[in-house]
Amino acid sequence: MDGFDIDDIDEVIHGRVRLGVMAFLSTAGEADFNEIKRRLQTTDGNLSVHLRKLEAAGYVAVDKSFVGRKPLTRLHLTEKGRTAFVGYLDAMSKLVGEAAR
Amino acid sequence: MDGFDIDDIDEVIHGRVRLGVMAFLSTAGEADFNEIKRRLQTTDGNLSVHLRKLEAAGYVAVDKSFVGRKPLTRLHLTEKGRTAFVGYLDAMSKLVGEAAR
Repeated sequence: MDGFDIDDIDEVIHGRVRLGVMAFLSTAGEADFNEIKRRLQTTDGNLSVHLRKLEAAGYVAVDKSFVGRKPLTRLHLTEKGRTAFVGYLDAMSKLVGEAAR
Repeated sequence: MDGFDIDDIDEVIHGRVRLGVMAFLSTAGEADFNEIKRRLQTTDGNLSVHLRKLEAAGYVAVDKSFVGRKPLTRLHLTEKGRTAFVGYLDAMSKLVGEAAR
């Protein structure tokens, strides 16, 4: 347990929906709002709340545009978000490793 | 991302303090209340709240006794708790593995 400290876990990332968003964007590169909503099986309102938190932390950047008259919201991880996610994965790897021993 | 589903993450375990308790007990076997409080650098009230949730889920068992006139609260993972924690670690391993690729 010495390698594991709960303070190493970034609460902004740790929330389940936000974790899903970060994990998805880290592999997908970028994605639109509806795609993420579908993958995480969540609602517009719930996803919006969590995206705002990720945006406020500077982890996710949002590009809003229009395709014809349809609004399109595309999201990607920022460099800061990618660094924070790597740190999060490190902390969780430690936990998984320690606990598996 | 196909191997990772946020519904695989057990919310009872995922909370940061509860995760710390589960991880600590999974390696320590059993521990007393003050030892856990010290390791997680939390307060009596906060730790009590989270232990009640873990107890309600049947993941942690609590033994209360006295040493002389001093109350002693010892905790250990139940079999159900150990199984749930292994499942949680599996889900997180998938996430870590998927995201690292």
